[in-house]
Order: sequence, then C-alpha cells, then structure tokens
Amino acid sequence: MPPIGVPDSDPSRADGGDPFDIPEGHPFGPHNLPYGVFSPAGADAGTGTGAGTGTGTGAGTGTGAGGRSVGVRLGDRVLDAGAAAHALGSPYAALLARPTLGPLLAAGRTTWSDVRRALTAWVTVPAHREVIAPLLYPLSSVRLHLPFEVADYVDFYSSENHARTVGRIFRPGAPDSLPPNWKHLPIGYHGRAGTVVVSGTDVVRPSGQHTSPADPAPVFGPTTRLDIEAEVGFVVGVPSALGSPVAQSAFRDHVFGLCLLNDWSARDIQSWETVPLGPFLGKSFATSISAWITPLDALEQARIAPPERTHPPLPYLDDRDEEPNGYDLRLSVAINGHVVSEPPFSTMYWTAAQQLAHLTVNGASLRTGDLYASGTVSGPGERERGCLLELTWNGRDRLELPGGGRTFLEDGDVVTLTGWAPGQNGLRVGLGEVEGTVVDGTVAAGAVVAGRS
Amino acid sequence: MPPIGVPDSDPSRADGGDPFDIPEGHPFGPHNLPYGVFSPAGADAGTGTGAGTGTGTGAGTGTGAGGRSVGVRLGDRVLDAGAAAHALGSPYAALLARPTLGPLLAAGRTTWSDVRRALTAWVTVPAHREVIAPLLYPLSSVRLHLPFEVADYVDFYSSENHARTVGRIFRPGAPDSLPPNWKHLPIGYHGRAGTVVVSGTDVVRPSGQHTSPADPAPVFGPTTRLDIEAEVGFVVGVPSALGSPVAQSAFRDHVFGLCLLNDWSARDIQSWETVPLGPFLGKSFATSISAWITPLDALEQARIAPPERTHPPLPYLDDRDEEPNGYDLRLSVAINGHVVSEPPFSTMYWTAAQQLAHLTVNGASLRTGDLYASGTVSGPGERERGCLLELTWNGRDRLELPGGGRTFLEDGDVVTLTGWAPGQNGLRVGLGEVEGTVVDGTVAAGAVVAGRS
Repeated sequence: MPPIGVPDSDPSRADGGDPFDIPEGHPFGPHNLPYGVFSPAGADAGTGTGAGTGTGTGAGTGTGAGGRSVGVRLGDRVLDAGAAAHALGSPYAALLARPTLGPLLAAGRTTWSDVRRALTAWVTVPAHREVIAPLLYPLSSVRLHLPFEVADYVDFYSSENHARTVGRIFRPGAPDSLPPNWKHLPIGYHGRAGTVVVSGTDVVRPSGQHTSPADPAPVFGPTTRLDIEAEVGFVVGVPSALGSPVAQSAFRDHVFGLCLLNDWSARDIQSWETVPLGPFLGKSFATSISAWITPLDALEQARIAPPERTHPPLPYLDDRDEEPNGYDLRLSVAINGHVVSEPPFSTMYWTAAQQLAHLTVNGASLRTGDLYASGTVSGPGERERGCLLELTWNGRDRLELPGGGRTFLEDGDVVTLTGWAPGQNGLRVGLGEVEGTVVDGTVAAGAVVAGRS
Repeated sequence: MPPIGVPDSDPSRADGGDPFDIPEGHPFGPHNLPYGVFSPAGADAGTGTGAGTGTGTGAGTGTGAGGRSVGVRLGDRVLDAGAAAHALGSPYAALLARPTLGPLLAAGRTTWSDVRRALTAWVTVPAHREVIAPLLYPLSSVRLHLPFEVADYVDFYSSENHARTVGRIFRPGAPDSLPPNWKHLPIGYHGRAGTVVVSGTDVVRPSGQHTSPADPAPVFGPTTRLDIEAEVGFVVGVPSALGSPVAQSAFRDHVFGLCLLNDWSARDIQSWETVPLGPFLGKSFATSISAWITPLDALEQARIAPPERTHPPLPYLDDRDEEPNGYDLRLSVAINGHVVSEPPFSTMYWTAAQQLAHLTVNGASLRTGDLYASGTVSGPGERERGCLLELTWNGRDRLELPGGGRTFLEDGDVVTLTGWAPGQNGLRVGLGEVEGTVVDGTVAAGAVVAGRS
C-alpha cells in the first residue's frame, strides 16, 4: 500500500493530491459525509439514466452489481464505503458493500448514527486514513447513480409564498390567494416514482395535449412551457405498518436524510389535464434528484423553528411542543450557469415532520425508499422564487440572461440547483447539486401511432 | 408417486378428489390458467398483508423465500408451477420457481405464450398430469399473496357513465356533466403503490380531516363516507425506455394481464383535500387487487370494439384502425354476500391500450410491475354503478340490504368484487375475486401526537 497522499497504480485515483488535504471551509469536509452510489468510470456504462430503464426489481439485490458501490463524499473525492468497511474489519461491511443505499436506509436510526460515527473516524484518524486512502476516487473519475430505488414518490405544496403567488397568477380576482384547505393540511399528491432520475440525466422535452386561449380544442406537440421546481426531497428509511400513523415525533426514526430535487413541469400539459384529478403527464416525464443524500445527522445545526402558524393546526399537525423541525437550507437555481433565484427553505410553512404525519395519518404505510418532496421552495423576494412560472409571472415577463432572455426553458438549457446548510463551527454543509439538460424530444404523432416493439 | 387422483401423504393435499376432474363449465378450467403467488398453509405466517409492511426491496429476489411460489389456478386447486416445471424438465423452471411473478412479467410476450402453452399441456396431457398431480394444492389449504411488487400505480377515470353521474351529483347546474377535457384524454393520476394489498387483507377505516356543510372548519376523525370503486387493473410486464412513448399497437407487448381491483375511497377526506392537486389520503390507505392475474392470452374471445367515439381523438389515441381493444368483462359487487351492482366493463369509453398510450406519450417510462386501473366501472343502469357514491347518490338514498340499509360502508362489512369474461366454446373465464373486510380504525388524535417508534 502506498503512503498517504501518494497515488497508487490505479490511474483513476492518480490525481497526485493528498486526499485528506481538504481546503478549509470545504462544504464536503468530515462534518458532512453524504451518501451516494458510484461506479468507477467505465465499470457501468449505459445505465446512467437510472431507474427509468430498469425492471423495477433490479436495484437492492446482490452486491457490487455492475461495479456499483455505496460511496461517501469527502472533499472532491468519493470513498468506496463498502471496501473501506471490509479493509477495516467493520461490522457494517455487509450493509455498505451494496449497489444501493437500500439496506442502509432500512437499518434504522441507531445504525445510521453508528455508521456515521465509524465513517467520521475513518476519514479523521491517521491509522484509518492510511488504510482508506487508496479507496478514495476523484469525483471526476466516477459515475454517480440513482442512490436508491424509489418506492413511492409524493410531492407537497408547502411554500406559502409559492402557493400565494400561484393563486395571484391564476385567480387574480379571488378573495384569498390560498385554497381554503391550505392552512389546515399540507396539500400533496403522488407522482411517478419510476421516472425519478439522478442528477446529470438529460430531460427530454415532453409532448402532450395542450390548449391555447385562442383555441379551446387541444393540440398535440412538444410543451412550450417547460419549467423547473426547486425542491427538497426527504428519503424514508424505516418502513411503517399499514394502518399505523406515524407521529411528527417519530420523524427522525423514519427519515434518513434529504436531497435536492427538481420537479420538472410542463405547464401547458399540466393546465389542460389537471382538473379534476390533479397533475399527471405534466409532471411524470422526469423528476431529478441530487446524487448525494445528506443524512439528517449532518444537519443538526440547521434545525430552526418553522414560520409562525397563523391557523391552529389539528392535533396531529400541531408542532408547538415539538422540537424544531424546520431546516435552514439555502438553495440556488442557475440556468446555463447564471443564478436566477436563491430560494430560502427556512420559509416553508409545513415541515417535513408534519408532511410525514399527514401522509400517514390515514394509515398509509411507509416503505424503505419512499421519497417525499417539499413542493416548490419560494421566498418572499422576487429573486427567491423557485420556478419560472413565478419568476416570469407565467410567461408574461422575460427573465433576462446573458445570451438571451427566457420565459420558459429552451432546448439545450442546463438547469442546476445547488444548496447548503449552516453546520458546526461556521462550516457549510454542502447539499450537492441536481443538474439536467433539456433535449429536443419532438415526437411526430404519426410515429407514435406507428408503434414500437 | 401415487396414481392420479389418489392423494399422497401430504395432508394439505389429501382432499381425496381427482384434481383433474373439474366440473364442466368451471370458470377456472384449462382454458383460463391465471397466475398468482401462494404458500402452503403455515409456511408463510404473518406476512399476509403483503406490500404494506415490506421494505420495498424484498420481493423479486431469491427463490422460494418464505415458501412462496408461483401458482397457477386449475379448478379449485393451485398448481405449484415452479415445482411442476422442475419435475417436467421445463426450461421455464427458473422463471417460475420464484416468490413473485416479476421475472415472468419481465420475460415478454413470446415467453408468456410459450409458458402458457406448456402449462396447458401439463394440465391436459395424461403423462404430464401424472407428474403434476401431487403438486396441485386445494385452494382452501394455501395462502395467496400479493402476486408482484407494484412499481407505479395509476388510476384512470374512463367510464363515461361514472364520470357523468359524478358530474350530475357534484355539479347539478353545470351545462355539461363531463369535464371539458374528458373526451379528449383518459384522465388519470398516480396513486400509492405501497398500499396495494391482496384480496383478503382487512381494510382499516382511515381517519383524516373532513368538513361538513354546516361547519367549514375541518374536524379530524374516522371517515363516515367509506366507499368502494369496482375497477379492472392492468399489469405491465415489459418495461419501456425513458423518453420513448408506447403506441396503442404495442399494448399486448407490454401488458401481461389484468386483475380485479377495489380502489377504496374515503369520500369526505377526498372532497376536502382534492382541490387543487387531486385525490391523496382519501385513496392512499388501501387498494385491493385479486390474487389471480389473468393473462391477456386467456381473454382473446372477450375482445370487443369499445363504444363509438363521439369526439375525434388526437392521432396517438385514435383507435379506428386498431384491433379491438375493449374487453367484455362482467363484474359483480357484493356487500356481505348480497349483490348490489353488476358493472359491465364493455361500456368503458377509453381502452387499456389508449390509457397506456396516454400514460407514456410524454416519454414516461414503464417498469415491470406497473399497475394501472380503469377507474370505477359503471354501466348506464342504476344497478350497474360501481361505487356507493353513485348507488346512493352521495348518501342521499339508502341501499336496501338484508340486515340493514347502507349509504356508505360500516365496520364489519365484507365487500366482494368478482368477475368473468366470455371464453372459447361458451366457457366463462373466471377473474377471481377481490374481497376486503372493513375494520374499526379509530385513531385518537392525542394518541397520534404521542407518537410511536
């Protein structure tokens, strides 16, 4: 084994630096340690689009399939966590030497904390560092995959600023810009789990039915109002039994961590289909998540009280006596590298603990891999809005960008959502990024009818 | 091995009859052969509630876990299909000796037909019968399980009679009883895959928020308007790639078969939450499916033209030049053994092939195990309505039953949905049944807040 900091003979790891020489204040220092699934470049070609093309029973079985392993990010490197556990004789080797986070997610809170404690030791104690140094891959040399098989995907609508602005845009004469139920429950709906993709996956512009104000009959074609929604997704680890609601106080026993999430939306398709049963094809073509899942244990310093409740919630949603379940997460949305918005997650009215309590209050069970998202995160400021619908007032105003203004997304646009949270000792906890490029998806109606096998 | 018809020493199979002596006209004769997953009584205790309590990564891995096997129904017996394939040296042994239908579903149309042809030979050719006789278990001696891991669950709204009646109930003054988009697209939405349960699973009465006309502020408590929805579910076998729509003509290449489905609904919870994003907790507590999946190959004689299209559909939904994709399925709904409705599936406006084309036209991918349901099946007659909402005009009228009338379901009620389709030579193809008992689920709001670990 080579000395620490001296590259070994594997060229994918031969970047010449000391892997533990992380710049001060780096958002992925040992205080963070988010989890993902990676494969060394070349080991897993052709499956980068993740769940979209799987059979639904592939992920979560076997070990090391396709060269995938649980990875933990340290600085700009990825630690092969399973190999590290093996090398150090850790009892968690069986849990980490997997091609998915599934078993770790299912293991529960005590194990989550124990594994995190072990990882912290491995990357900080000199004797352990020597062992794991060869197991740290430069981020630029690996491929990141969808880190877990998504069970059910639920999307909420919990930003009051977002809901009020949407109300003002679509119901300008209404007495209240919020729906009557909005302050009584976190409104949510189920989305398509099978089209949740990992950051970096191209997003094909969807086609569908839409109408125009000039002509009430629907036409078929590519969406002309392709939008983003900057959100935060929560990842369920520990399942619950059918018929047994999960209280807010059990939030951290069931939820492992969070990720960044872009809920791509085709506004024209959505608006034609949405009455009476809600969004469907306007959303189901793609939902992108960050490759890194940040454990809640890394975000203790980011916990804050949510905004003051203006309506008394029913007991199962009342959080006056709960520990604070808000999170101070700072998001940033960029189009083609230019920041267009910085939505503050601290402004969300309903917390993830309340969302979980609501989601299960009817007895609905949780499964490992359930993912539920906050809904578009929008602050009160004009540059804090988390979607183009709000930023351009449904296309009325152009968003000026170097290289040309935008109302909605154009083919070739690269959307990047990043985020961080305050951590210990003034450090930032990086939340990674979720990025996607819009690609042309023109589908001739005739070609669809002609069929495919 | 004992001679045919003589029980062997296993008491679970010792019912003394000739397993191939099936009464003439039996709906589960060799012309049917639906698939399920079973375990001999006692081999798999405690997991009868199926997906609801799993971890989301369990099903589909390994062989014979918990004693579960692919079973094929013949008369009132279940053939252990994997054991039969092994005993007969079939190349499909590896596909059938599984605790789930997943691998068979994923195998594709050619294999589906080949396996069906092999099964037909095993249960009809005397030499094969001798081998498989000991592998036929009386239905009463086995436990039936959720037959596959549900990937995504989508529910449509494709009965014109149902949609018009709902419109008349909730929008009595509206100029048209259908929403403006109804004749242009099959309206649908995503439901909760993790709470799809197999027939026989108790349904806990859900609690949630609801309002009354007298008081617009929501209260929390058990639903007082628990309803059923008699539906047919379609099971996707072959996946599709993200970004690639699936045409109507490819319907039988992707869809393996169908099942009966009861989409339990809490109407009071649903009506308070549903605007603006659609049904959520009013549906997500349970969806029951039959234990038997009938392959489309068994339903060729039931194919019929759907109702005449009163609006010209967009090209991807146009089926004037398609083979007929309607199905003549006769459903029956019973409460506590008394038939209350006989909904005719032949009246459905949108076909399953159109639903599949619509579901994927935006590029959404399919996974093995995707389940999509027709929506409530209602015919034009008063006794052909598939839900109590319609049958009792939203609780205005009582449905008279021996033992007491009903508006909505009471605790202890047993709901049974059965069905059949015309088959070859005048035979009926039985679709099995989906049954569920409503059980008390009172959840004190205080108890929920107190939490559970």
